[in-house]
Amino acid sequence: MKSPRKTGILLLTCPDRKGLVAAVSDFVVRHGGNIVHADQHTDREARVFVQRVEFELDGLDLARDEIAPTFSPIAKQLGMDWRLRFSDEPRRVAILVSKLGHCLCDLISRWRMGELRAEIPLVISNHDEMRPVAEEVGIEFHHLPVDKTTRPEQERKILELLREAKIDLVVLARYMQILSNGMVDAYPDKIINIHHSFLPAFAGARPYHRAHDRGVKVIGATAHYVTAELDEGPIIEQDVVRVSHRNSVADMIRKGRDLEKTVLARAVALHLANRVVIYGHKTAVFD
Amino acid sequence: MKSPRKTGILLLTCPDRKGLVAAVSDFVVRHGGNIVHADQHTDREARVFVQRVEFELDGLDLARDEIAPTFSPIAKQLGMDWRLRFSDEPRRVAILVSKLGHCLCDLISRWRMGELRAEIPLVISNHDEMRPVAEEVGIEFHHLPVDKTTRPEQERKILELLREAKIDLVVLARYMQILSNGMVDAYPDKIINIHHSFLPAFAGARPYHRAHDRGVKVIGATAHYVTAELDEGPIIEQDVVRVSHRNSVADMIRKGRDLEKTVLARAVALHLANRVVIYGHKTAVFD
Amino acid sequence: MKSPRKTGILLLTCPDRKGLVAAVSDFVVRHGGNIVHADQHTDREARVFVQRVEFELDGLDLARDEIAPTFSPIAKQLGMDWRLRFSDEPRRVAILVSKLGHCLCDLISRWRMGELRAEIPLVISNHDEMRPVAEEVGIEFHHLPVDKTTRPEQERKILELLREAKIDLVVLARYMQILSNGMVDAYPDKIINIHHSFLPAFAGARPYHRAHDRGVKVIGATAHYVTAELDEGPIIEQDVVRVSHRNSVADMIRKGRDLEKTVLARAVALHLANRVVIYGHKTAVFD
Amino acid sequence: MKSPRKTGILLLTCPDRKGLVAAVSDFVVRHGGNIVHADQHTDREARVFVQRVEFELDGLDLARDEIAPTFSPIAKQLGMDWRLRFSDEPRRVAILVSKLGHCLCDLISRWRMGELRAEIPLVISNHDEMRPVAEEVGIEFHHLPVDKTTRPEQERKILELLREAKIDLVVLARYMQILSNGMVDAYPDKIINIHHSFLPAFAGARPYHRAHDRGVKVIGATAHYVTAELDEGPIIEQDVVRVSHRNSVADMIRKGRDLEKTVLARAVALHLANRVVIYGHKTAVFD
Repeated sequence: MKSPRKTGILLLTCPDRKGLVAAVSDFVVRHGGNIVHADQHTDREARVFVQRVEFELDGLDLARDEIAPTFSPIAKQLGMDWRLRFSDEPRRVAILVSKLGHCLCDLISRWRMGELRAEIPLVISNHDEMRPVAEEVGIEFHHLPVDKTTRPEQERKILELLREAKIDLVVLARYMQILSNGMVDAYPDKIINIHHSFLPAFAGARPYHRAHDRGVKVIGATAHYVTAELDEGPIIEQDVVRVSHRNSVADMIRKGRDLEKTVLARAVALHLANRVVIYGHKTAVFD
Repeated sequence: MKSPRKTGILLLTCPDRKGLVAAVSDFVVRHGGNIVHADQHTDREARVFVQRVEFELDGLDLARDEIAPTFSPIAKQLGMDWRLRFSDEPRRVAILVSKLGHCLCDLISRWRMGELRAEIPLVISNHDEMRPVAEEVGIEFHHLPVDKTTRPEQERKILELLREAKIDLVVLARYMQILSNGMVDAYPDKIINIHHSFLPAFAGARPYHRAHDRGVKVIGATAHYVTAELDEGPIIEQDVVRVSHRNSVADMIRKGRDLEKTVLARAVALHLANRVVIYGHKTAVFD
Repeated sequence: MKSPRKTGILLLTCPDRKGLVAAVSDFVVRHGGNIVHADQHTDREARVFVQRVEFELDGLDLARDEIAPTFSPIAKQLGMDWRLRFSDEPRRVAILVSKLGHCLCDLISRWRMGELRAEIPLVISNHDEMRPVAEEVGIEFHHLPVDKTTRPEQERKILELLREAKIDLVVLARYMQILSNGMVDAYPDKIINIHHSFLPAFAGARPYHRAHDRGVKVIGATAHYVTAELDEGPIIEQDVVRVSHRNSVADMIRKGRDLEKTVLARAVALHLANRVVIYGHKTAVFD
Repeated sequence: MKSPRKTGILLLTCPDRKGLVAAVSDFVVRHGGNIVHADQHTDREARVFVQRVEFELDGLDLARDEIAPTFSPIAKQLGMDWRLRFSDEPRRVAILVSKLGHCLCDLISRWRMGELRAEIPLVISNHDEMRPVAEEVGIEFHHLPVDKTTRPEQERKILELLREAKIDLVVLARYMQILSNGMVDAYPDKIINIHHSFLPAFAGARPYHRAHDRGVKVIGATAHYVTAELDEGPIIEQDVVRVSHRNSVADMIRKGRDLEKTVLARAVALHLANRVVIYGHKTAVFD
């Protein structure tokens, strides 16, 4: 496969008004760029405009570090909240996990097979079971057990490790500890969690047990950004699988594992490809 | 298509113990019957056994009205809660509807095309809009508007109509009124409702609006038996469809309509085919 | 529900080159218009650009009949194959059906419930069974039986009926006759067929029987534009449903009916909403 | 999780006749056994009966090695083709792979996480890329490159390796070589392949490219037993995922990878759990 062309990606949101679709494309075209994808969305109820524009850097009459300053006045005038990303930026991901390793294993497999455009320098766990899974492929593993008394101290250590490793994205791959607000604030819109239910159904603990009790015919999994409110952050991706009365809780857990892996991996890949824009407590996913 | 062979169907549930799978098949075989389907389920947590056995009446050495009395002692000994049905029993369905007619139209279309083995003698609505839809295919239509003061009186009339028409199954096809306990008690396990969300998510009013607010990536519909507790009855069938940030509430309502139609029709067909057994507040669906 | 704003819709395809995304939005903005949706796609292998732009007519400094002449020179310069549609144009649909009426019934139900923005003045069938379904809701029904000797004569009559009724779209709702090339040529990209398999699997006759023979675990339905080559036209929509060894051919036919209805209705609604662009022998569906 | 009770599993198929459902359950009950699952299917067109009965060994008045001889006369009388398996039998799986490692990685991850009840002593490949993936978790890896002249010699070596390692199941996890009939005959119903299309659509080479050319809206993957005829063996599992005009061939390959992994893993797990019965060129999957 030939290496993809290098691109810049503008992700932006602003109050809806006339002419927004043309504003960014004008900017790119005026500077000799070629737009390879342009996708936008207007939320009419919220009166919000959301856009993702990807353009080739090759042919642009601006150097990389000139793009943002040149675009800035346009964005300011239109009240835009925006980010500029580059397709070839290095991204560094840390994975937090507890005892259940299926999501961790899956993310590592994908990374090894070249499916995730990122480095994974760090795995942190409150248990020691997943150490060999990380270390045998050369990823640093830290065992930081948590109980009531050690929680603040351990979170401080986690933050230190994340900073030292220059982490851009934290993935909670079945990490069964609730993060403090301090930690969430340190990585705003940069922590992705997988919850093993179809939110908002069965938020909180033991969702498969509660799904089994309720006798539902479909179970699900939800990948979302972590915010201060538990299981209430912006949803990136969800999927479901049918179950029947024949399925025990153990069957649901087994079926759910495949969902969790796939849904989390999709969300992480979408985030790394700069395809997710958060507005309000929702996401626009430009896939 | 040749007419299907006439069958008897035993639906039963009892405490789990050894030998249950053999007990019913023994009974049928001993009387010269041929089992065409036998399906069972053991809920190990609840220690409950659930079974559906369908056997040809042709060749059986018992007349129809001898089957139940002959089986009764076996059932009693094993503590079974059981019903005997026949594949050719006439079934009479009443449909209750408010203003949104897509589920009503769909059920009537299916009935006309021969998909539902039942008669539909009666449509009742708290609005008058659906009158022509019912009457043009010869179904009796009753307009019983409901407000706070008339509710008890109107429910009394509904019950009277259902009794006069010898109704076996009441289908709430987007009937936007809450039934009183008296009505629910009069038709235990014989009222099927379609709720326009993936229960237990978004129980209650305006589920599509709330799904849109939450930013979910999948919406659903749930067909369930009606019990005294709103949206808490045993679930018969659920299904979902993907949505994205692009979908407005109106889009969700439109996409949801197709789900509601299909999920309700499947549940009604499963009930009419004697394929649903209720145990506890759950169902076993032998499809 | 408030009535939606009136819009113009440009559907276009042309060889890919720089600046295309900006060209149409420029045109609209320059004339004071507001783009409410803009969606485009570049097929890199085929080097083809496809776009759908929807803009409010209100506020535009061009009258309806001035838009096309004003846009024409831009389109010509860029080698565009394009169409201009209006959201409030009346559309007239004829439905052709044989004996199986589920798709016909479903389309009529949707039309009555206001889901299809079109008129249905005409149903034509090679059998007489569906006459009441059409006539009871006031749709003209023509019974034109077909055999080897009468085929050319009957097709001539069909074409006459379509022309007299000023039909814009012909829907083959399980019409089990193969159309002649003459008829296909008379309505290019304006005949939609539902095929009861997941094309290209099981093209041709008796797809459910062949799916059952092969032991597949999923069956499907495909809505496509009709071209001279049988079951080879551009696909608009497909969907599938799981089956198992338990499902007889009759079960597959029953399950398939729901698929066929939904897939055909979606394709018809997408076409009527001007959301489908054909390029090569494929479609871009801007939903 | 407590260790599951040890069970025996009878998998059988025979010509349909009266009394079959009762025959096996009688046998088990007569010997003091407890049936924990019993599932059967009658293919009315083929007049074939298929059954899976799982019973606890604990409490049975027969030793393990007495079960088969005691059941044999019953089976003979009814013309049964049958197998007896035990839930705790050790199973040995070899994986063959070429360059694309996602299925191999996924199977190994599942095996490490305890999802597959089997040992994986052997990975064989016609390339050397996957060596570290196997060896770092202690699985023997053999690189046996294949070209026209070496094929027979290499297949001979593969067969030798499989025999030495006492392999029960061969999994072709994207092994891009066609097996000779000799090899297929040596492992009848014991070789599972993943094909990256929704069979029978796009059998043979480059299915994603052909799916992209045809403009399908859904792509799929199929796990099947390998027989002498390419891509024609009994299908165990299939699944699909939606695609759109936006998806390039590379996108389809990426989306397909997740399907391939999941579909293959499900098929392998079903086979290892003794839940698949082959009859004719189809499977009954008792899940």
